[in-house]
Amino acid sequence: MTTRGVSLLAYADRFGGGMTGLRDLLDGPLAEFAGVHILPFFVPFDGADAGFDPIDHATVDPRLGDWDDVRAIAARREVTADLIVNHVSASSGEFRDWLADGEASEHHGMFLTFDTVFPNGGTEREITAFYRPRPGLPFTSYQSPDGTRRLVWTTFMPSQVDLDVAHPAAHAYLRRVLAALADGGVTTVRLDAVGYAVKTPGSDSFMTEHTLGFVREITAMVREYGMRVLVEVHAHYTQQQAIAPLVDLVYDFALPPLLLHSLGTGTIDRLIRWLEIRPRNAVTVLDTHDGIGVIDAGPSGDRPGLLSTEEMAAIFDRAAAATDGHSSIASVIPAWAPMPHQINATFFSVLEADAGSYLLARAVQFFVPGEPQVYYVGLLAGLDDVELFRRTGQGRDVNRHVYTRDEIDAALAGEVPRALLDLVRLRSAHPAFEGAFSVRAVSATELELAWTAGEHHAVLHADLAARTHRIDATPIPRVE
Amino acid sequence: MTTRGVSLLAYADRFGGGMTGLRDLLDGPLAEFAGVHILPFFVPFDGADAGFDPIDHATVDPRLGDWDDVRAIAARREVTADLIVNHVSASSGEFRDWLADGEASEHHGMFLTFDTVFPNGGTEREITAFYRPRPGLPFTSYQSPDGTRRLVWTTFMPSQVDLDVAHPAAHAYLRRVLAALADGGVTTVRLDAVGYAVKTPGSDSFMTEHTLGFVREITAMVREYGMRVLVEVHAHYTQQQAIAPLVDLVYDFALPPLLLHSLGTGTIDRLIRWLEIRPRNAVTVLDTHDGIGVIDAGPSGDRPGLLSTEEMAAIFDRAAAATDGHSSIASVIPAWAPMPHQINATFFSVLEADAGSYLLARAVQFFVPGEPQVYYVGLLAGLDDVELFRRTGQGRDVNRHVYTRDEIDAALAGEVPRALLDLVRLRSAHPAFEGAFSVRAVSATELELAWTAGEHHAVLHADLAARTHRIDATPIPRVE
Repeated sequence: MTTRGVSLLAYADRFGGGMTGLRDLLDGPLAEFAGVHILPFFVPFDGADAGFDPIDHATVDPRLGDWDDVRAIAARREVTADLIVNHVSASSGEFRDWLADGEASEHHGMFLTFDTVFPNGGTEREITAFYRPRPGLPFTSYQSPDGTRRLVWTTFMPSQVDLDVAHPAAHAYLRRVLAALADGGVTTVRLDAVGYAVKTPGSDSFMTEHTLGFVREITAMVREYGMRVLVEVHAHYTQQQAIAPLVDLVYDFALPPLLLHSLGTGTIDRLIRWLEIRPRNAVTVLDTHDGIGVIDAGPSGDRPGLLSTEEMAAIFDRAAAATDGHSSIASVIPAWAPMPHQINATFFSVLEADAGSYLLARAVQFFVPGEPQVYYVGLLAGLDDVELFRRTGQGRDVNRHVYTRDEIDAALAGEVPRALLDLVRLRSAHPAFEGAFSVRAVSATELELAWTAGEHHAVLHADLAARTHRIDATPIPRVE
Repeated sequence: MTTRGVSLLAYADRFGGGMTGLRDLLDGPLAEFAGVHILPFFVPFDGADAGFDPIDHATVDPRLGDWDDVRAIAARREVTADLIVNHVSASSGEFRDWLADGEASEHHGMFLTFDTVFPNGGTEREITAFYRPRPGLPFTSYQSPDGTRRLVWTTFMPSQVDLDVAHPAAHAYLRRVLAALADGGVTTVRLDAVGYAVKTPGSDSFMTEHTLGFVREITAMVREYGMRVLVEVHAHYTQQQAIAPLVDLVYDFALPPLLLHSLGTGTIDRLIRWLEIRPRNAVTVLDTHDGIGVIDAGPSGDRPGLLSTEEMAAIFDRAAAATDGHSSIASVIPAWAPMPHQINATFFSVLEADAGSYLLARAVQFFVPGEPQVYYVGLLAGLDDVELFRRTGQGRDVNRHVYTRDEIDAALAGEVPRALLDLVRLRSAHPAFEGAFSVRAVSATELELAWTAGEHHAVLHADLAARTHRIDATPIPRVE
């Protein structure tokens, strides 16, 4: 296993039809991938938030397989799995038990209630201060069988009840899950939605100093189980910079919007600036199951962004034009926010299915320091599944097509996926990527990203205006 | 004008295509109707809550006509109009002005905020205590142009912001609306959703003693403008009894579920009991634009209902069976409630389009003391508009078909509407209905409702098991 490899991001159910099918792909046509992040495969994998609302976070959904199947995948590559740290399903045994028995429940304290945060009552100013990724208030009322009503924090959906991450009962729950993940062969734990986990009255409670304190704490806890920590935070780039030193890995969520900006305007200055200051312990992405995260490159409150509000708006406008407007319909605008969190479209769709632009973007992604990750829809150069979106009403489903194995094999034979797999091979096998990295502006529109290790080098020349690129590399030494 | 007449309940847009079309119907084929309740025709008549979310409550939507058109209708019959007393649209000038200018706005105080009700902060118990006709919490956050956030009460939809009915600014608003209604020829004001208008911390705030106090106050205010007050409250029958003496008219919302119960079980005991204790200053209905209100006959908390929970459930089950299950899908269950507020279906659909049952139910309605009202869909023996419901996703639209004039004329030629118009004529013209009323159980399944005035009498014999009825009446004296 090497950190210079490329990893795949996939749902077991939507890409291979289950753990066995996913392993067949990774042991077959996708053998070049050094790792895989399997999106939530717990019980149930197909809840209201596609697995991010676990009822039993410590068990593999039997419709997908079992822990032995996960271990079989992990035997030959790194496996990343999610730790859903902010909430659990309201249908979980823990929540139902607490709702029924209250203080007598062994899970009493595990869930965050309104009174936990506001023991003396909340005011208008305090209640509206919270940052939330969706419109509306972050509370939902639940009633116990005896009629007692509780007002529980629900940062995301009403069926996703927040944990009180400061409470020992929640720690005990998270440790049970971590033990199961480690035992199942998971090597990296992705902390989902950690930016929202700590609620501090009087603040917006998103990525505060208290959140950073909790990230330190949970990182120590994950490392006790011998796993790495990858933190998912969509936020202003300075917050990404603040969190990067505390953990093993962050995401470079600013890269996709910067690439969309560069490809849309034919300029490279914003991209180059980011390459100079970005954290290097980053997983690089163009697309994920959450669509194309873009908010990270924009301004936040008084803090200027890597892109201006107008430049961000232009990205949304181009995406809407490329998708006949449906990316505007599918994307949700968070509470108080001037623009959507993400573009709900595939990266290939947003680039109007232009192979040259798409492979240029992937080449830049792969040449940027960090650990490149490719989403399964992006690997197959998938276009928006508007039909699935219409059927479910879930905007993100445009970018979550359910592939049969036949569809996968057919797609992998296409020109773009074959070129992409060549890039994966280069990035995984070329020794230059273990060496030194440099970046250079060749002109106002041309960029050069170079890796050098001894006599080996790999150099990417990219022209963002012409939307062309070229890679010059020494031959990959044959493995004896 | 006579209180012994029958009135029509209709939307100007869905029944006649506007004020002129509605007047043509009332001056033509529907001339027997002594009055009309025109559902909200203000600006706009077609908002998210079909007119019950006014932006300008004092102006006739110009797409329907103007106040002269309303006056023309009022010249020949009683006109009832809604005073939407609980809320206004968040798009109203008043709300936007206050949101922008805060304390400097002339409308400051008109709207109910979280802090108005909880000046020292609200707790979990207090916040979850409120009764609400819909799931979720009754607050919505709004942001002013300068970024100030307000948490405003929204008992119904997020776009319907509640008035602080204790505040002079809200009184001033209500008086402006009342003046416009009175000037427009309106003779009766229907107080919409008044049961929710007063919020009292620590209580469920639905129809409390404070609400009754407000009803007294608003009734006095309406009467100052020379209009009658009809109060709309869906609640336990004892609450209807409590409010009836305070106002001119209430609704008999218990009658429809009792009739459905009697027709479903072939029994008359529950119906007879209600006829003995019900308030007589009531508008009688079988159906309204809100579907078939049924909750009024059921138990509430510890108070037994006119029907038991099981009997209520059986009504819902029969309705679901009669509508292929869609009445279950279309009906919304309020927060904390064990069953829906209303059945979203037409009365004719729920009776499986059986003309005998339907005309029996109408005959009972017309013979019960009070002022009978017929909803336009019920007049035309309309069936559920499932297509409209599917298109809008609004459950109540199954019972809100949009009729063209040709459709109306065709429907009125049908057997059931013709028989119903005969009943309207009898109820309007027969002198017995100005006399004495009596009710008698002829058998366990047969009922007799009789009116006598001097030598005139009109007697309804109804068999709820056989679903047949017969009317014996002296001839209607010819008007010279």
